Order: sequence, then C-alpha cells, then structure tokens
Amino acid sequence: MELEVMGKLAKEASRELIKLTQHVKNACLISIADNLVKNADEIIAANAKDIENGKANNMPESLLDRLLLTKERIDGIAEGVRQVASLDDPIGEVISMKERPNGLMIGRKRVPLGVIGIIYESRPNVTVDAFSLCFKAGNACILRGGSDSIYSNIAIVKVLKESLKENNVTENAIFLLEDTSRETATKLMRLNAYIDVLIPRGGAGLIRSVVQNATVPVIETGTGNCHVYVDASADVDMAVDIIKNAKLQRLGVCNACESLVIHKAIADAAVPKIVAMLKENDCEIRGDEIIQGFDKSIVPATDDDYATEYLAKIISAKVVDSIDEAIEHINRNSTGHSEAIITKDYDNAQRFLNEIDSAAVYVNASTRFTDGFEFGFGAEIGISTQKLHARGPMGLEALTTTKFIIYGNGQVRP
Amino acid sequence: MELEVMGKLAKEASRELIKLTQHVKNACLISIADNLVKNADEIIAANAKDIENGKANNMPESLLDRLLLTKERIDGIAEGVRQVASLDDPIGEVISMKERPNGLMIGRKRVPLGVIGIIYESRPNVTVDAFSLCFKAGNACILRGGSDSIYSNIAIVKVLKESLKENNVTENAIFLLEDTSRETATKLMRLNAYIDVLIPRGGAGLIRSVVQNATVPVIETGTGNCHVYVDASADVDMAVDIIKNAKLQRLGVCNACESLVIHKAIADAAVPKIVAMLKENDCEIRGDEIIQGFDKSIVPATDDDYATEYLAKIISAKVVDSIDEAIEHINRNSTGHSEAIITKDYDNAQRFLNEIDSAAVYVNASTRFTDGFEFGFGAEIGISTQKLHARGPMGLEALTTTKFIIYGNGQVRP
Repeated sequence: MELEVMGKLAKEASRELIKLTQHVKNACLISIADNLVKNADEIIAANAKDIENGKANNMPESLLDRLLLTKERIDGIAEGVRQVASLDDPIGEVISMKERPNGLMIGRKRVPLGVIGIIYESRPNVTVDAFSLCFKAGNACILRGGSDSIYSNIAIVKVLKESLKENNVTENAIFLLEDTSRETATKLMRLNAYIDVLIPRGGAGLIRSVVQNATVPVIETGTGNCHVYVDASADVDMAVDIIKNAKLQRLGVCNACESLVIHKAIADAAVPKIVAMLKENDCEIRGDEIIQGFDKSIVPATDDDYATEYLAKIISAKVVDSIDEAIEHINRNSTGHSEAIITKDYDNAQRFLNEIDSAAVYVNASTRFTDGFEFGFGAEIGISTQKLHARGPMGLEALTTTKFIIYGNGQVRP
Repeated sequence: MELEVMGKLAKEASRELIKLTQHVKNACLISIADNLVKNADEIIAANAKDIENGKANNMPESLLDRLLLTKERIDGIAEGVRQVASLDDPIGEVISMKERPNGLMIGRKRVPLGVIGIIYESRPNVTVDAFSLCFKAGNACILRGGSDSIYSNIAIVKVLKESLKENNVTENAIFLLEDTSRETATKLMRLNAYIDVLIPRGGAGLIRSVVQNATVPVIETGTGNCHVYVDASADVDMAVDIIKNAKLQRLGVCNACESLVIHKAIADAAVPKIVAMLKENDCEIRGDEIIQGFDKSIVPATDDDYATEYLAKIISAKVVDSIDEAIEHINRNSTGHSEAIITKDYDNAQRFLNEIDSAAVYVNASTRFTDGFEFGFGAEIGISTQKLHARGPMGLEALTTTKFIIYGNGQVRP
C-alpha cells in the first residue's frame, strides 16, 4: 500500500477511535492479549525466519536475543497489554473549565493526538507495547520497525488487526510499514498531512536521524549521561550505596549513572570507599588528577569521557571546588536525563533541584528510578529528554493533547 | 557575533534567568517600558530609516503601516510590557507531588524552556512582545526579525539590553540576529545544541519554511480556515449574528470565519437571511449548487475554495445532508484552528465538541474569541495549530516546561 494512502486511512481511523468508549478500547486490548497467546506458534514460526536471517547476516548474540520470541516472552507481552487495559483512560477529562465575564464557558479537554508514527529497531515486543499505549490513548498508529524483525512484526500486526475486527473496531487503527527502506522511512517522517507526532525508539543514531530528517513534530527519547554529585556534607555510606545502584544495578539503560562529581571537602572520606566498591565490581574508573591520586588503577578522563554515555562497566569522575562548579559541570555535560545530589545540606539540595536542567533531578536517591513504572504511570512509551510537550518518563498522558471547548449562548466579539 | 557564540551565551544566560526572583524579572520589565518611552525619539529615528528603505523598495502601504512606529505606538508597546509584568509568574509552581510506596516524593515543577528562537516578519512590536513574554517565563531568546525592520529592531534591542543591565541582569537574555540572511536563519533553525524551541510568527510561507527546515523543535502557529456550521435546529437570528461577527468584525485575522456549512433542513429559513447580511456588507459568496439557487450573485465554489483562508470579504458555503457530513467536511478542510456549531440540539452540540479535531471548538459563539486575551491568559505569543506541547492560544504557560523533582532519603532500585 502507498504510504500516502496508509496515512489517509490512519487519519480516518483516528476520527473513529475518538468515538470509542473506554469499554470498547479495553475489550480490544484484552482480545489482543488473548489472541497473541493463542497464535503464539504462528508468531514464533515467523520469528524463526527473522532469527535465521539474523544468523545468516552475522547479527551479534545480544541483538539476536532481543529479537527472539518464545512462548514465555509472548505471555509476558500479552500480560503487558492486559496491564495497559487496566490503566485509567486519560481521554475525555476536562482539565479546567472557567466562565469568562461575557458568560462564555471555556474548558480544556484531553483528547487523542490523532495519528502517531513510531520508528524503532528490531525488538518485536515494541510493536505490541507501542500500539497498546497509542490505542488506549485513542490514537491510530503507523509503525516502522527494523527490517531484521519484519516477519515477526507482520505476524504480530495480523493478530492486532484481527483482534480489532473481532470487536468491530477499524483495523486501520494500526499500519505496519512492510517496506523497511530508508526512503520510505524518510517519507514517513515528512508525512505532515496525516501524521501528528513521531516517536523514535532506539539508539542514538536512530534518534539523530529522525530529528535531522523529520518535518512532523518529534518527541525525542534520548540518551542518558546521568550524574551523581557527592556534596561536601553527604552521608558517605549512602553515597556509596546510591552510586553502586545507579552505575551497576543495570548497565545498558539510559538512567544509569555514567559520571561522578565529588566535592573536594569530602574527597578524602568518600573517594577511597567509592573506588573500592567500583573496583570490587570490576568497574573501570576514568578520573581527573585528584581522583587519580587515590588509586593508581584510575586512568585519566578526557573531556570526551565526561560527555560519554558508556552503557558499560566504566565511569568518569571529577573533583570540584564548589556546588557551583558541580552544577556548571553537570549542565554542560549531561544529556538532560537524570542527575542526583547526595547531601545533608538544605540549601544545596534546593539549589541542585532548581538549577540542574534535566528531566529528573534527585536528592539522595538513585537515578535508576527514572522510569514510567517507578514514577507510578503504569507503563511508558519512552523517556523524553526534550522540553516540548513531554519531559521525562512518558505514560499515556504524553500520547494525548488538549483542545479548548467553548459553550456559548450567542456571544459575539465586541 | 557568530551564531554559535550567540547560542552558547544565550544558553549560559538562561541558567542565570532560572535563578531570578519574580521581583527582579518584573522590575526589568518596568524598566523596559519606561526606557522605551524615554528613548522613543531614538527608536523613531531608526524606524524612519526602515520606512525610507521600504518606500524605496516599493513596500505596499499595508506593510509600511505595520512597520511604522510613532510615539503613540511606542506608548502602546510599553503598556503591553507593563501588562506582562502584572501577569502571574508561571515559574516554580509544583503541579503535583506524590509519595511513592518506597517513600520517594516525586513532583513536577514548572520551569523555563531555556532558550527560545523567534522568527518573525517586519513588525517591530513583535520584538518587544515576544521578548517580554519569553523573559517573564524565565527564558533567554534569540530573535530573527525581517530585514525590512532591522534598524528599528537594533534600536529596540539596545533599549532592552540597557534596561536589563540597569537591573544587574545579564544582557545576554536577548540577542538579535543583525544578519538577516536566509542562510543564517536556516542555521538558527538547526542550532539544537543551544536552542530549545523555535516559534515562527508570521504568514503561511514563513511558517512552512520553518517547519521544513528546522531540526530544533517548533511550535507551529498556523493559519485559520475556520468554519461556522448552522445545524438543523439553529436559531437563525443567532446564526446570522455570529456569522456576521466571525466573518466581518475583522478580516485579516486567523480566527475569522472563512467557510459556512448549512444543514439542508434549515437552508430555506437561514440561507436568504445569511446571504442578505453578507451582501449588505459587500462580502462575496462562493457556494455549492444549492446555495447558488438562492441568489444569482453567488459564484460556484471549487474544492480549493473550501480549503482557502481568504482573509478578505469572501466566504465559501456548502449545504450538507447531516451533521455527519458537516463534521467530515470540516475535519477535511479545516486547518485545525477554530470551528463553531449553531444549534439548539444537545446531542449535536456534544458530537461537534467531541468529533471536530480543532484547537478551539465552539457551541453558539463566534470563532473570533480564539485569542489569549479573550481566553483570560492576559497575553499571547501566538495561536498553536499543532498538537504537541501547546494547542490554541499560547500564554505564558506555553513558554514553560516541567521537570520532575524527587526527594529521597537513600532509596536505591531493587
């Protein structure tokens, strides 16, 4: 199908989705969960073709693992859809309604965005996750997954469309781009007539390409060069625990700590304990001269190190003279994701919260909490590091917009 | 100054602006108002050079008038700045704060966007308006006005910078691009490292160019092909009053009505009165065959007519068989700005409010109310017709974002 036609049909479908009750939307999601489990064999057979191609193309083990679907994984994906069904529906809420002096009642109502384009890599679970959240928030979507997972995605989208039909809901609520060429992806990014928002989900290269090429508005889900700052008054044991959690609890995630900043007044008390904990866990440390003075295994950190999201057992570290220097260093090097201060000082806690320009700013807690589930949103479509529309973990509300509704009785403008 | 350097300095300034109290920001705005009036002669002298160049370049009268500054107009601009000073400051509000099961307190705080780029045409008043609103919301800004108003803008920005200095606030809170070449404008649109948001203000061509070229996130302020739908049960006199107001009260504005949709059941009762009123006001009507049957002066409407924002004494009109057809026709042709239904029918009012996909949807009132002042925001930076971030009239709140602030006492993720 031509992309233009797909866009037009998705836009038309979005007009229908606006009218669905919560009951109907949730019934569709439950059908989807049931049918994914029922059709697991068929999906796994399609997935086997992707895996086979992946092996033939020398896909690395870690990517093959992300691509692989099993009965258990499909059960997990279906369980995720049931959870989305159980979430509160954000649509229809009137956020405010006020009467103006001329008697007009002006309200803001939460409504779907319309048609959402999702561009992602070879993780077939995203096909289901992204659709469920978009659909629950009343949106149609056009998915463009990686070519490596195309057979899996076709099999999954077939189940999604059939489940919608079972519930007398238009199957045009979801489209999958079976043509995974770059040219078609670029056309999708420029289909302003039909697509309201684009959400890229994947690595830094994918996101950069979407930001560079899209004319459709983008919600950028970004990388995380997250910092932990150990202030002069920090509880050193707490600092060690939080750094251990933030750096090492899971390595390949955007909310992991990648860089330490330590006040010089606490360096003698804190650095040896932090270094011991990191070395015990085989984590390489790249530090400035003062940090290097504490242990000869510490290699020098370059400016590039301070700006790097390692996603590995490596951490950069720097000693600063003041909280001002810490804030300046963090704002300069961070990607605006998540940063934490460890402190007992009231004023410094407040300053850090106010002056650090990131989506999530913590006092005395691990940056690993930046996550839709941990924040209580029930699910997330991604973590936004841009400032427009949504910032930080994005739940269902990020997939909505508002419109003004105005009740009059004949008012005209004087 | 190189644009990169400008961007870097503006970003640094934005870190300072975050720390300013409301008192200081308002004192700056009052100084600006005072100094604009005090330096009116100097500004008018600079403006005279722009006017002279405009005349030499055969600028049309209407544009020369938009460009012209007088003592009275400068008083008006200064009064606008005083009004912005008197508005509630949106920054610092904590919109929500909840305790999670693990004891983390997670809140959302309203904060400035950072650095805002404004691209606009040759209206020197926008230089002051846009800066005042951005600054009140704690943002630095980089302005790129039209080349036709460059002398006026340089004189105005000099006053703005001096007023900031008087109050010991960094003058880097505002930059003007003195190089008004297209190349530099395009560079500004791609300065993602330093600019958080771009807002184009001007005609359809300017906005299209920004949407096509920008990689920085854009808030699109769009054109308005606004509709009034006269439902079967409408009060005909109310319909005539509202159409007169929506079409004719002011012609060149984005919230003016450009197209009528009339239910066939009320056509005999309503069309003659509407046509009479429009003809009395010298408004050309372009209609479908049924409308043409009512008056031989009515010319045929093409599909292009239904999609056109005339900004003139011309209106298109169409008769429909049902509210479904009306909604479909409007959603297809509208630019998503403002639409109104005139009806006495409860269900149809609700359906119109729910199913029309525009920023502002009215029952029994004129579309001309879509405006920041009329909506009670006190001022507006523009009217957004996109769905991300801000939709409809944008007041100070549209110039802010939020961040998550998290208070812990040692929490780590299990």
